[in-house]
Amino acid sequence: MKAEILCVGTELLLGDIVNTNAAYLARELAAMGINVYHQTVVGDNPGRLKEALGEAFGRAELVIMTGGLGPTYDDLTKETVAGYFGREMELNQPSLKAMEDFFSCRNMKMSENNKKQAMMPKGATVFANHNGTAPGLAVEGEGKIAILLPGPPQEMQPMFQEGVRPFLMKYSGQIILSHSIHMIGIGESALEQQMRESMLAHKNPTIAPYAKQGEVLLRVTASAKTREEAEALLRPEVEAICREYSEYVYGVDVGDLQHALVAELLKKKRMVATAESCTGGLVSKRITEVPGSSEVFECGVCSYANRIKSQILGVGEETLAAHGAVSPETAAEMAAGIRKLSGADIGISVTGIAGPGGGTPEKPVGLVYIGVDSEPLTTVVRHQFGSRRKDGREYIRYVAASNALRLALQAAKLF
Amino acid sequence: MKAEILCVGTELLLGDIVNTNAAYLARELAAMGINVYHQTVVGDNPGRLKEALGEAFGRAELVIMTGGLGPTYDDLTKETVAGYFGREMELNQPSLKAMEDFFSCRNMKMSENNKKQAMMPKGATVFANHNGTAPGLAVEGEGKIAILLPGPPQEMQPMFQEGVRPFLMKYSGQIILSHSIHMIGIGESALEQQMRESMLAHKNPTIAPYAKQGEVLLRVTASAKTREEAEALLRPEVEAICREYSEYVYGVDVGDLQHALVAELLKKKRMVATAESCTGGLVSKRITEVPGSSEVFECGVCSYANRIKSQILGVGEETLAAHGAVSPETAAEMAAGIRKLSGADIGISVTGIAGPGGGTPEKPVGLVYIGVDSEPLTTVVRHQFGSRRKDGREYIRYVAASNALRLALQAAKLF
Repeated sequence: MKAEILCVGTELLLGDIVNTNAAYLARELAAMGINVYHQTVVGDNPGRLKEALGEAFGRAELVIMTGGLGPTYDDLTKETVAGYFGREMELNQPSLKAMEDFFSCRNMKMSENNKKQAMMPKGATVFANHNGTAPGLAVEGEGKIAILLPGPPQEMQPMFQEGVRPFLMKYSGQIILSHSIHMIGIGESALEQQMRESMLAHKNPTIAPYAKQGEVLLRVTASAKTREEAEALLRPEVEAICREYSEYVYGVDVGDLQHALVAELLKKKRMVATAESCTGGLVSKRITEVPGSSEVFECGVCSYANRIKSQILGVGEETLAAHGAVSPETAAEMAAGIRKLSGADIGISVTGIAGPGGGTPEKPVGLVYIGVDSEPLTTVVRHQFGSRRKDGREYIRYVAASNALRLALQAAKLF
Repeated sequence: MKAEILCVGTELLLGDIVNTNAAYLARELAAMGINVYHQTVVGDNPGRLKEALGEAFGRAELVIMTGGLGPTYDDLTKETVAGYFGREMELNQPSLKAMEDFFSCRNMKMSENNKKQAMMPKGATVFANHNGTAPGLAVEGEGKIAILLPGPPQEMQPMFQEGVRPFLMKYSGQIILSHSIHMIGIGESALEQQMRESMLAHKNPTIAPYAKQGEVLLRVTASAKTREEAEALLRPEVEAICREYSEYVYGVDVGDLQHALVAELLKKKRMVATAESCTGGLVSKRITEVPGSSEVFECGVCSYANRIKSQILGVGEETLAAHGAVSPETAAEMAAGIRKLSGADIGISVTGIAGPGGGTPEKPVGLVYIGVDSEPLTTVVRHQFGSRRKDGREYIRYVAASNALRLALQAAKLF
């Protein structure tokens, strides 16, 4: 079955918000073996929305729409779809009830215009919204299916999993299964150059590299009748790649560095603590965004001022005087200091120059020292990250944090 | 002039990356008075790309494309556009030179396939890429303009500002000017209900609410011949709204809470320090992502373990024993403790239960206490954030951090 994603919202068209829904739906549909060849965004305009809907159904049998289910007067997706399928609107009592419960359990007053959200095209399949007010729905007719979902991702995503996925399963064809090999320290272009032949050679499974910020994700995808067949196709390929690129690979299907690190620390029953300068808490933020991280994260100190580096982390004033805050010596003492202070098994430190200001010829923007202090591994790594990007500061902070997480992961694996 | 945005990339179609380029370009074009009514995403497939390009030019005179300019064999945007306009490809020497410099100044070896990126359709206007290897380009013919930009935002955005913006200026019509009124603590639906009449009444300027995570942004937009005329239309409207919603408004055109806070602290020459539990460094991360924040950010302590709360922040063990880590008493002592430890003018603390685990009937997931300790303002605010969302943990951490930044901003304004 061919599908298209049609996202509705003037705020998308004006660029006021980023369209994360298209990415989420595309990923989920691909995993169900439903091919998406087209994504479209149109504004809250009934005319253009109807036109886009017609074009989409001209190319595909399934059109999944997000947005325009809100309570406000410019939310018109349902009405437009009802018009397209020639259905009348009617009040859906269960939806109204659910909405009233939603507000009462929050001690909030339901505003009049929320009622609009309980109106449905006749014959629609309604998907309950357990995380917001707007229910979703599916309208079927003449071999076409329109699925309408709310715009907010925290409402749309669970609704897709709980309602839409089961609804679509009966239409889905082959199983498509992927494994993601996560690498850091190698560029996409270099990797593609090395792997080009095998990428072109492989048809099932296919191999494709995707550049993430400072990382490369190698996605190996197989399609088969059953999950087991797909796995049998994938396993040898994934193992071969992991062997060949072992110095870059930090995990398979691990999601990201922080999830890989927390999982490893939980496995080894070890604790980590962070001492950050230029990353300003980004390392601890990324570790603690993982549920359950409180089991493995002891504490973090974010020390911009040198006084704090000495006072709390115990970095020697003479060290700071002789080598400066951005130096391997300071990084080493920060890592040792936070480990000692916290009693954690692994101390991680980051000190560098994120820019845009603060660079010198000797210590340019993008220079970052990352330290680790632990039983099995104690070292400092020097990085010089690109500094010419417009978003240099955020980029440098992010990849610095990524490399700190990677170093912590390397230490954790040695326990 | 009507424009469309056409983003190319199988990784977009598969949902491996989120399409931030469409949002960026839409915003920039709107600000130039160029209307975008359509955004499309297609994969790295010459046939479908050519078809999408034809459809786009059927509706618009300007099509801005991103992606598919990379060095790899599946990057085909340039070739497809050349085919559409009936142009041959030729090697662009300046682009080749720039690319060689890019690699040499990074002590990297240029791979053979990068040379492909210097090939251009005959007669194209080339936009230099100062942040990557792929140059951008514009191809004009028969009243149509195609602009091709690289996919990576950190390359595409500066190229748009330096090359594309000036290139497009000559086509732009009216000035469109917006002011963004940033609010926190009021819901979009409630706001829209209150403002509905005036939103419908206003044609120029227009007023539109956009929900951000835990915030509402009210965008007031005027179009006029000159910037001055637009300003004259906007000013009274913006001032009236700020007066009416003063308890929720934290700034106009301030970008976000952390930029508003750093700007206020710089103005007042005051320092802030943070003590975080459930936000795990997110507050300090958001403050320090603002360039120049080192002038106003003293330090941050992220204390998961109670021992750290006592040892470093000086929270009384009896306080923790009597009231627990998630309590107004602990929040107050954390704020006072970090202020004392750092010598900052404002101490901010966050302690709460981000979930998914750790909730109890007395202290459910989403309960967060935020404390501020400063000369003009010392208080603790209790929040109970929704906990039923799938992305509950990230949502709770984010809005908790937002409210901490807001409280710090309130204190800073009182100096």
